[in-house]
Amino acid sequence: MSHPERAAIRNRLLTAALLLLGALPLRAQDGGAIARRYKSAADRIIAAAMADTLAYSRLATMTDTYGSRLSGSPGLERAINWVLARMQDDSFANVRGEPVMVPHWVRGQESATLVSPRPWTLHMLGLGGSVGTPPEGITAPVLVVNSFDDLAAHAAEAKGKIVLFDSPFPTNVPPMEAYEINVAYRGGAASAAAKVGAVAALIRSVTPHSQQTPHTGSLRYQADVPKIPSAALSVEDAELLHRMQNRGDPIVLTLKMQARTLPDAPSRNVVAELRGSERPDEVVVLGGHIDSWDVGEGAMDDAGGAFAAWEAVRLIKALGLKPRRTLRVAMWVNEENGGRGGRAYRDQHLAELPKTIAAMESDNGVFRPYGFRFQGSAAGLAVAKQIGTLLDPIGAGLVEAGDGEADVGATIREGVPGFALSVNDSTYFWYHHTDADMMTVIDRDDFRRCIATMAVMAYVLAEMPEELPRQ
Amino acid sequence: MSHPERAAIRNRLLTAALLLLGALPLRAQDGGAIARRYKSAADRIIAAAMADTLAYSRLATMTDTYGSRLSGSPGLERAINWVLARMQDDSFANVRGEPVMVPHWVRGQESATLVSPRPWTLHMLGLGGSVGTPPEGITAPVLVVNSFDDLAAHAAEAKGKIVLFDSPFPTNVPPMEAYEINVAYRGGAASAAAKVGAVAALIRSVTPHSQQTPHTGSLRYQADVPKIPSAALSVEDAELLHRMQNRGDPIVLTLKMQARTLPDAPSRNVVAELRGSERPDEVVVLGGHIDSWDVGEGAMDDAGGAFAAWEAVRLIKALGLKPRRTLRVAMWVNEENGGRGGRAYRDQHLAELPKTIAAMESDNGVFRPYGFRFQGSAAGLAVAKQIGTLLDPIGAGLVEAGDGEADVGATIREGVPGFALSVNDSTYFWYHHTDADMMTVIDRDDFRRCIATMAVMAYVLAEMPEELPRQ
Repeated sequence: MSHPERAAIRNRLLTAALLLLGALPLRAQDGGAIARRYKSAADRIIAAAMADTLAYSRLATMTDTYGSRLSGSPGLERAINWVLARMQDDSFANVRGEPVMVPHWVRGQESATLVSPRPWTLHMLGLGGSVGTPPEGITAPVLVVNSFDDLAAHAAEAKGKIVLFDSPFPTNVPPMEAYEINVAYRGGAASAAAKVGAVAALIRSVTPHSQQTPHTGSLRYQADVPKIPSAALSVEDAELLHRMQNRGDPIVLTLKMQARTLPDAPSRNVVAELRGSERPDEVVVLGGHIDSWDVGEGAMDDAGGAFAAWEAVRLIKALGLKPRRTLRVAMWVNEENGGRGGRAYRDQHLAELPKTIAAMESDNGVFRPYGFRFQGSAAGLAVAKQIGTLLDPIGAGLVEAGDGEADVGATIREGVPGFALSVNDSTYFWYHHTDADMMTVIDRDDFRRCIATMAVMAYVLAEMPEELPRQ
Repeated sequence: MSHPERAAIRNRLLTAALLLLGALPLRAQDGGAIARRYKSAADRIIAAAMADTLAYSRLATMTDTYGSRLSGSPGLERAINWVLARMQDDSFANVRGEPVMVPHWVRGQESATLVSPRPWTLHMLGLGGSVGTPPEGITAPVLVVNSFDDLAAHAAEAKGKIVLFDSPFPTNVPPMEAYEINVAYRGGAASAAAKVGAVAALIRSVTPHSQQTPHTGSLRYQADVPKIPSAALSVEDAELLHRMQNRGDPIVLTLKMQARTLPDAPSRNVVAELRGSERPDEVVVLGGHIDSWDVGEGAMDDAGGAFAAWEAVRLIKALGLKPRRTLRVAMWVNEENGGRGGRAYRDQHLAELPKTIAAMESDNGVFRPYGFRFQGSAAGLAVAKQIGTLLDPIGAGLVEAGDGEADVGATIREGVPGFALSVNDSTYFWYHHTDADMMTVIDRDDFRRCIATMAVMAYVLAEMPEELPRQ
């Protein structure tokens, strides 16, 4: 165990030196010693990424050919097979699918139809994990509320009704914070409504913008409460029903959902490596998730992120760069409705996590990147900020403290420094978990910038003799 | 005929004087004599409009209750009945439905399903006026082209195929100009494809933004070419098929459309008046169209415009203002698929058009108004600009030369000066002719500004002793 101890002492000394250098005004201007050392390699990586066409082509081929990739679906497994074959084509090392048992929820046919005050086909998507309705559907009067508190105030009126939570996406905080607030209804509507005797629960889709676009996503049933069917309506239709209620119109609708949960299904995390030239047992892992919801083609959420990481490592390899440590591409499975892939990765790689230098994920869409949110020590952040300056030429040099993404969460909690690609997410929730999550969302140049951003950071983390400081 | 002659001479003299005054720098700053004269009334109108809640409430009630209003539909006639009843409630004069025979196209059930290379339910809307398919649908290979020229270059490959025109909405010109260019495909795809032996024609929806949102609208069959079914796909799905073709995937889809054209149906232009206090036979007519496509609820296109005009006149009346000339609210029918209402209005009011001072319409959505496009003489424009300054307090004072709207076109061609409400149309085509044309698009404050803008201009045109100069 003497090698790690020596390495730790060396790292601490180097880090202290780096921080000192970085603190000097003259040095700070060009990002410090690390940035200067890797400027040439970073510029080559950026140039290659900004001219890249393969990643977009592959992303389109996979998403167009296999479509959406919900856990348990044949499309997901076919897509994984295709990716593994292409990674073999790329001559990556240790290309493999690591087994993960995943939940298997199936949507089936579904509809929500307004019966009164006038016929109208509502724009709906059942929520992931929901139980179904009887085959004839559930026809019931509707109670519209705007919050959990509002439901509590009208609890006596909810029995036997379909409760609709028309709670708008907050616009007074950034999108991700607004999502965290608003998604409470997606998760909790069903059990909250069931507690007061409702027969089904609907929510207003979790989004700041709509074109009659329903958004799916997971719900959470409370263990001690009856499970009732739950679905999202488009913003427009939720507002329509709310106005009808405000006018005193008697609202009745029929909800039909064939949704059901089948036994867990076998799936895989996708892993491939560029083995380190000097310290192959030290790993920088980067990726996104390969599964998606069962709508659209999951190009934004999150094939784009997964493929950006893949192409980042492929470009480093193609440029003939041979970083000291291993770069590992990971495409986690089941991010959307279980998080099994991220936890399985942590469990299956537990022994090597002490030597895992960083875990990086892109899962906010491959929009124009700002840089990274870094989850780790202050010393680690200081080094990451220095490396970040190498990305200033493409406007992606911002590194700030913040949370990592879902799939790397379990790994980060084991002490591994985390990097989340930070992007302009102003339109992310427009497409999130919808049929509009298609290749059309992907901007070629923004995607290239994301590839460059992940590649430069991952390369320097894998190449620099210093180990990124941990807690 | 001596009165009109005297009036004409008086008007010319007054106009010359006004233009002279308007040209003086000191006068120009406050908009000139007319603006000064009506400043107080305009401010009262603006204040009332900016506090208005009735128009929004009525707009929501009508659109939510009766839904979309395609010519020939029961919903349209019920909505017209409701509006006429409310106009009676408002104690307007001469409230009436003026008979118009309208085309009666019915969509029926429809679908487009990708058979190869993979199953996928395409997001489609049949185009208005299209013929249907046989009950079993049309299953055929797909040829994707990006323009009429591209089809000509691949004419030999089109026989027996479904031709898809994937022609993007131009982004290098303002939205309305882009629409005029791009809509050529909606109108002409069917006959262009039929000429080279295609069995059906699809277009990419005419829009700069999509969330899997198909856009309908009228097509035009050429008389000497076989009529083939035609529909719009969402932008995403058109791009999907185009990418599949570029990759060499064999594309086959099944198109099913029950569309048919029934005999013309009776409908009505809605008209109501605030009779002029001194010259009731001189008329300022303002409105929008009451019909819509058979998707969404037609709140933006164009119930909002029609209701803004209605509320404009109702507010003038409620404020106790008694303009000299008659203010006439008109809600034309069949703007969307025939223009019969606008022509019927011209024909039925032909005798009074020489005394029609102005014809004003809002049909670009009730978004933030800039002011007006004015279609008429230079002298008329100069006066309209002066009146426009009264709207500077709400940022709606811009009056520029430009074309009027569709329904008033026939009237304008008879020499009547035309006013088109000019608005920020940057998102208009996102919702245009889609299921997303719902009340959610309507911003309460922008709607109020539109009401104020139409009301101030219409009031001054009806009240000022001078007649707005014609050609």
